[in-house]
Amino acid sequence: MSTAENSIEILADDLQQQMLDLGARARAAASLLAKTPAEAKNKALLQAAAAMRVGEGDILAANATDMAAAEQRDLTAALLDRLLLTEDRIEAMAKGLETVAELADPVGDVIADWDRPNGLRITRVRVPLGVIGIIYESRPNVTADAGAICLKSGNAAILRGGSESVHSSRAIHACLLAGLAAAGLPESAIQLLPTTDRAAVGMMLTMPQYIDIIVPRGGRGLIERVQNESRVPVIAHLDGNCHVYVDASADLAMARDISLNAKLRRTGICGASETLLVDRHCAGSYLAPLVKDLLDAGCEVRGDEDTIATDDRVVPATEDDWGTEYLDSIIAVKVVDGVGEAISHIENYGSQHTESIIADDGGVAERFLNEVDSAIVLHNASTQFADGGEFGMGAEIGISTNRLHARGPVGVEQLTSFKYVVYGQGQVRP
Amino acid sequence: MSTAENSIEILADDLQQQMLDLGARARAAASLLAKTPAEAKNKALLQAAAAMRVGEGDILAANATDMAAAEQRDLTAALLDRLLLTEDRIEAMAKGLETVAELADPVGDVIADWDRPNGLRITRVRVPLGVIGIIYESRPNVTADAGAICLKSGNAAILRGGSESVHSSRAIHACLLAGLAAAGLPESAIQLLPTTDRAAVGMMLTMPQYIDIIVPRGGRGLIERVQNESRVPVIAHLDGNCHVYVDASADLAMARDISLNAKLRRTGICGASETLLVDRHCAGSYLAPLVKDLLDAGCEVRGDEDTIATDDRVVPATEDDWGTEYLDSIIAVKVVDGVGEAISHIENYGSQHTESIIADDGGVAERFLNEVDSAIVLHNASTQFADGGEFGMGAEIGISTNRLHARGPVGVEQLTSFKYVVYGQGQVRP
Repeated sequence: MSTAENSIEILADDLQQQMLDLGARARAAASLLAKTPAEAKNKALLQAAAAMRVGEGDILAANATDMAAAEQRDLTAALLDRLLLTEDRIEAMAKGLETVAELADPVGDVIADWDRPNGLRITRVRVPLGVIGIIYESRPNVTADAGAICLKSGNAAILRGGSESVHSSRAIHACLLAGLAAAGLPESAIQLLPTTDRAAVGMMLTMPQYIDIIVPRGGRGLIERVQNESRVPVIAHLDGNCHVYVDASADLAMARDISLNAKLRRTGICGASETLLVDRHCAGSYLAPLVKDLLDAGCEVRGDEDTIATDDRVVPATEDDWGTEYLDSIIAVKVVDGVGEAISHIENYGSQHTESIIADDGGVAERFLNEVDSAIVLHNASTQFADGGEFGMGAEIGISTNRLHARGPVGVEQLTSFKYVVYGQGQVRP
Repeated sequence: MSTAENSIEILADDLQQQMLDLGARARAAASLLAKTPAEAKNKALLQAAAAMRVGEGDILAANATDMAAAEQRDLTAALLDRLLLTEDRIEAMAKGLETVAELADPVGDVIADWDRPNGLRITRVRVPLGVIGIIYESRPNVTADAGAICLKSGNAAILRGGSESVHSSRAIHACLLAGLAAAGLPESAIQLLPTTDRAAVGMMLTMPQYIDIIVPRGGRGLIERVQNESRVPVIAHLDGNCHVYVDASADLAMARDISLNAKLRRTGICGASETLLVDRHCAGSYLAPLVKDLLDAGCEVRGDEDTIATDDRVVPATEDDWGTEYLDSIIAVKVVDGVGEAISHIENYGSQHTESIIADDGGVAERFLNEVDSAIVLHNASTQFADGGEFGMGAEIGISTNRLHARGPVGVEQLTSFKYVVYGQGQVRP
């Protein structure tokens, strides 16, 4: 073995030990946080917000370092924008911490309770999940958002930010630590990995003894790697290939408003619609105006033959278009034979994220809402409502397309587990 | 490559294709079952029960074949007993199917609903999980129990029984198929693997496109293999190292009744207690009678120094005893310094399954119930109540020590997911 290989091995061993130590600290902090009253957690969040406002200059300076490095690396304008912090964005982060402080504490809630004929009283009580690992990419604000939502739900957090945002994340993390200290809570409640070594991610995915759940936030490459490698349960969504279906019974004005909003309000979010399905029974009168609105708003339309016939700006859709999450000003449009074919199309090509039906016929709408197997199904509303804030959850850590545990927006309640607390008077089992 | 290797590869390819076909059929059945009304599912269960009574002779004959093979293989008496079917046991299976038919159908239940200021009405509605894979060992009755509970909750089931019980399981499965046919439901709703080839288990664990969740039922070796290899989420419990803690404030008579029942009512179930912790403040008067009861009832007692001093039949406990799930007439006994040390001991050695405190002091009991991080914590009641039937769930597929999705008894509700159904009147997101 060469000396170089030897030294790499020593480094890897050292990293592994660091990660195990960090995991053990997180587990101990989780045990304490499970017993921590709401007041202390809220104080930490409010003091972190205060520290963020006081430390605005430090955060901006750290972000300038990250931005300079990113510009040298020729990152795209979109990535640079995600990385950029401004006074307004820092204020929004601080406000976000205050919003999470105002949320009801889910820990200790009695979700269900009932009595048994033998006198046993059974209660199901919310408890924290334990330790949550968050793996994210360039957005430094995830450091604050994820740390806050984990703390509020009584969980210890292990944060692994992207290498592009390392200085920004550390400056934000320092504010979270100041908040924890002011509330008398341990710094290990919210830990930021001391390294951006990719090997550390692999270790997070294989420490089920210390990490109870992994939440990856980022592009498809990151999510796929995490889903494939993790020995720890993962809450994530891979794709948001969302659909709007316009039924023949739809109100045309409503269909136009919702189709346009679902696609174009913001094209880069997971709840943006990617395919518009139009009922053949109204295509003669509805298809052309729906398509024209999208084209006039600057959206590229990729259509089937019927759609191409309505406007010469429409380009032909290929088979791949039906399965693509564009996250851009592009939409696929197809004419279908009523709600049945719409449901089949979504079953074949959808990602079980969010779909909407525009229809006045209640029976048709009920069939769509029942049979479409997505985390969120809407009637007469835009798919862009797929958001924890819009659902009234106050804050979210993402949208889950898992079927287990958390489905749809993941807020503080979704970051909890429960236990059964059973009250007896001496009962033994016959 | 030798001809022999070649032929093995062909067989493996064939098995893989069979498993993929079976998975695709299950997925299609799940899609249908999600829309199937309760009446049809209940009819299938009741008709399966009827077929089981009519086919009692066939089931007994099949079981005799399995028993003869098992006896030749020198299986233990306990394993042979698990494998054995009798007229009474077949009647109990049939009654079990009828019990599941009587349960409320969880699918379609509105679990939560609320209105948003913009007029959106948000509802959270129970839906089936999809396809559930059950991997079990020698007990043939799991074929009926697991098939029934999956069907009731609207899920398609893929069952993989042990090779010892293959003929018995097939005979029971034939009754389930008769029930499905009588209700007009597809046979692919409950599939039994056509092979007991162990490679098929590996394939079940790596078909996330067709199987949504795996439930292993069996010994530690099976559970560990499944947890380590599965790319599909797993609901399982590994160990049930349950504790009873007797506080100084306990009623002695109650403590004696519960300690004895928790250990000895049935020693082979996961909710049987394995360690008795006694508060030092009452050890002088309580320890000797508690230990004597156990010894007199034929239980081996492995104790710490204080416990050894009470009775010369007590043998010394080793460090390993505190972490052992005996599933036998053996108990570890230790004196602790009050509820605090009891909680620490359980945190160090427990398996987060089920623990009970015997205490009259409500404050001490609340501390134990809050701080012990187990799926089930009981006050003044036996740990042997850790059971879906005793919880009023009607039927269960096991006890989960997962923190995600299902924790504690896994009944029909725990085999469901949910989706958000959102009702609007044309809302677009600003």
